[in-house]
Amino acid sequence: MHQLQILKFPGRLVMCEANAYLLKDGKEELFLEDLDTVEPDNGGLRLTSIFGEQKFIKGKISSLSLVDHKVIIEQTDE
Amino acid sequence: MHQLQILKFPGRLVMCEANAYLLKDGKEELFLEDLDTVEPDNGGLRLTSIFGEQKFIKGKISSLSLVDHKVIIEQTDE
Repeated sequence: MHQLQILKFPGRLVMCEANAYLLKDGKEELFLEDLDTVEPDNGGLRLTSIFGEQKFIKGKISSLSLVDHKVIIEQTDE
Repeated sequence: MHQLQILKFPGRLVMCEANAYLLKDGKEELFLEDLDTVEPDNGGLRLTSIFGEQKFIKGKISSLSLVDHKVIIEQTDE
């Protein structure tokens, strides 16, 4: 289990995070919040949040925009 | 051009970032620091840092570990 990513400084805590979105008909649909890892698994992707929530999807990572906190996943369920 | 991601709080600035690594012979080799976007481009990936530096590679995003600030790219130059 991963630790939360916490940047420490005097008297303050900050977390860095992104959300995973599914690309559907050109629109982005929220799939998993507070994303930590995305790993290849069984021909698809296993996503895990910083809280340990897991989701599997047949798809691939299409694009990233970390400044916008976005990981875009494209479904490939042919 | 993207803005730097800056979390503001009283008297302090923090940036959230990740680095892109190439997976080579099972080892991770630093490819681009301070990654912002990864976008599909011409059969490969175009990576852009938060400072506007760009790199192109024939490859795909293999995995992410955002808590570890890692984006792992697998080269596909067949």
